[in-house]
Amino acid sequence: MKVGQCLFAVVLAVASWAQPSQPVPASTNARGAEYPRINSDRSVTFRVKAEQAQHVQLLLNFQPVDMIKAPDGYWELTTKPLTTGFYYYGVSVDGFSSTDPGSKTVIAANKETNMLEVPGPESDFFAIKDVPHGEVRILRYKSGTTGEYRRIFVYTPPGYDQSKSRYPVLYLQHGHGEDEAAWSHQGHENFILDNLIVAAKAKPMIIVNEDGMTGAPLQISPPPKGSAPGKSVSRGFMGNKYETFDSIVSKDLIPFIEANFRTITNREHRAVAGLSMGGGEAFRIGLNHPDLFAYIGAFSPALAVTDTKTDYDGALADPAKVNKEYKLIWIGIGRQDFLNKPVSETHEQLQKAGITHVWVETEGTHSWTVWRKYLADFAPRLFQ
Amino acid sequence: MKVGQCLFAVVLAVASWAQPSQPVPASTNARGAEYPRINSDRSVTFRVKAEQAQHVQLLLNFQPVDMIKAPDGYWELTTKPLTTGFYYYGVSVDGFSSTDPGSKTVIAANKETNMLEVPGPESDFFAIKDVPHGEVRILRYKSGTTGEYRRIFVYTPPGYDQSKSRYPVLYLQHGHGEDEAAWSHQGHENFILDNLIVAAKAKPMIIVNEDGMTGAPLQISPPPKGSAPGKSVSRGFMGNKYETFDSIVSKDLIPFIEANFRTITNREHRAVAGLSMGGGEAFRIGLNHPDLFAYIGAFSPALAVTDTKTDYDGALADPAKVNKEYKLIWIGIGRQDFLNKPVSETHEQLQKAGITHVWVETEGTHSWTVWRKYLADFAPRLFQ
Repeated sequence: MKVGQCLFAVVLAVASWAQPSQPVPASTNARGAEYPRINSDRSVTFRVKAEQAQHVQLLLNFQPVDMIKAPDGYWELTTKPLTTGFYYYGVSVDGFSSTDPGSKTVIAANKETNMLEVPGPESDFFAIKDVPHGEVRILRYKSGTTGEYRRIFVYTPPGYDQSKSRYPVLYLQHGHGEDEAAWSHQGHENFILDNLIVAAKAKPMIIVNEDGMTGAPLQISPPPKGSAPGKSVSRGFMGNKYETFDSIVSKDLIPFIEANFRTITNREHRAVAGLSMGGGEAFRIGLNHPDLFAYIGAFSPALAVTDTKTDYDGALADPAKVNKEYKLIWIGIGRQDFLNKPVSETHEQLQKAGITHVWVETEGTHSWTVWRKYLADFAPRLFQ
Repeated sequence: MKVGQCLFAVVLAVASWAQPSQPVPASTNARGAEYPRINSDRSVTFRVKAEQAQHVQLLLNFQPVDMIKAPDGYWELTTKPLTTGFYYYGVSVDGFSSTDPGSKTVIAANKETNMLEVPGPESDFFAIKDVPHGEVRILRYKSGTTGEYRRIFVYTPPGYDQSKSRYPVLYLQHGHGEDEAAWSHQGHENFILDNLIVAAKAKPMIIVNEDGMTGAPLQISPPPKGSAPGKSVSRGFMGNKYETFDSIVSKDLIPFIEANFRTITNREHRAVAGLSMGGGEAFRIGLNHPDLFAYIGAFSPALAVTDTKTDYDGALADPAKVNKEYKLIWIGIGRQDFLNKPVSETHEQLQKAGITHVWVETEGTHSWTVWRKYLADFAPRLFQ
């Protein structure tokens, strides 16, 4: 990058989080929609039309708050000042739970859900800047495990098409009720990596996002203690469908990616990570396949190691072996996350057993606001 | 393709439109949603929860129809048997116009709008089959015209990455209120081309989708008669923003695509087409840039040629020149389309003037059901 471009990037960076002096439509709004509006104190004003309604609620991060009817038939609500970051929301009208037509939607809780971006200085690292950009590719591939065509999102780094190099691959998973588009639509994985790569903070890499919703409803528990090796992986967090996703990734997805992209095809150049449910999947797939992965990342993961000797089929039983095998086991959780307790206990168990891992405890809830930051912390540690 | 693959494709093709003997969730439903359901006679049953609502309407293709309250607090409606194809819809609850959480959404009318696919034998040509698949790539590029990063969707044909060939390019535009994702999400341009290419019915090509919503609200009129050449392109259908989109395509987009994809960079290997508003844009950009495009496609276009001598700055005034310059001018419209009259008149004016063009009048309304078919008719005529 030339000096001129660098200066321009700095100017953009400053401009991108300048606090507005008057209310502005959110960047996540539908085209031309005036509401929701971000106010100068980072409070947000929502406004929806529902002339004949009796009871309208905003569902901010799925929590209901009553909206107030204005004389013109619109319902309004101004929040208290919000923390910079990403919010899911919806609107409920007389018992009809749906979305605000003023905002764009993404998939969360298995359905279209509004998103709201509250900008601030912390938004800079995932902003689109005047730097070389990678691509996000939508592909279909045939899974032998399920017999179906499956949709995947693949980030290729800047210059991939022009280069003849081979690249390492991060397999990166979304959370429960989301889908393979989430790391792009909600997470901005592409801009995060573009910005890290141009600053030489992360190696150029390919990122692959699959659809991890092959499992049963959410349960946070490790495999039963003392379960027979090779069997217990079929139970626990993902219920009896865990093997399905493991098989999709290890038998179908990796061979497809390596046949169709210029990848470096060894464990030292493969990482698996994910958030929430996807963090549980990543931890498990990573431990189940030391032959495939040398890096594991668990962002606010749905996992709870209570006994390193027996959990995960004893994959953690020999700390020296684990420390030699894995170049990185990364675990992060927000202090306000409802999963903080089991994940903190997991950290303590690993620490007690002498299993080397990076432990990152941050401010924040169970939210894309922290998962974007976790990717920006995790990616620079890969493939070095 | 091997014989075995061919046979399998035929089996899939038959299977893909077998009429269900009992109601099934639509393919466009949210994950796990039981409604809307397609019944065996192709009627569709909608069902939404709105316990305290007084008045609930289904907005099928934006037309309101009252739903009926069931004893369990749900509101229901079963339509008459519907024509196979694509429908936009929404739900209105006590004056709150939004979407059905049971279906996925796409951008239409400038906001998230439900989509509904009613399958039938005619769905086969855009079905995902066991054939080689291309990719849909999401890219950002910097527009000198607007100074902003713009998002584009780019279809690359099967084998693009493995090949060293150069490819022709179709610039293909969506309609008013839609966006650059529409030809992929609603139109399935990728599956249509995959299926045409494997059958050797269309040349492998790249398709590029930009965001054509740079203009003023919808007006269906050609530039004023007798307006000065080089000036009138700034008025008419796209209002004073028409020049913006023309500049984006001709000055920013084409150079970006040709610098970043393996394209054949001459007019005989570039086509421009679009639907509705995008058909008006394509017709105008194509006529305005004979140096850039040899193929023009206008699908149910928002255009009305009333005088071939003066409209479009006289670009049609010399039929012999037009016939020599353009390898294809393709115009299609549905008999039930509200734009049928001005488009049929356009066809008559061109015919009267002796301007060679393909005229396709089909059954159908102003809908993705016909636009998919138009692409399947248009694409095989390109770059031959």
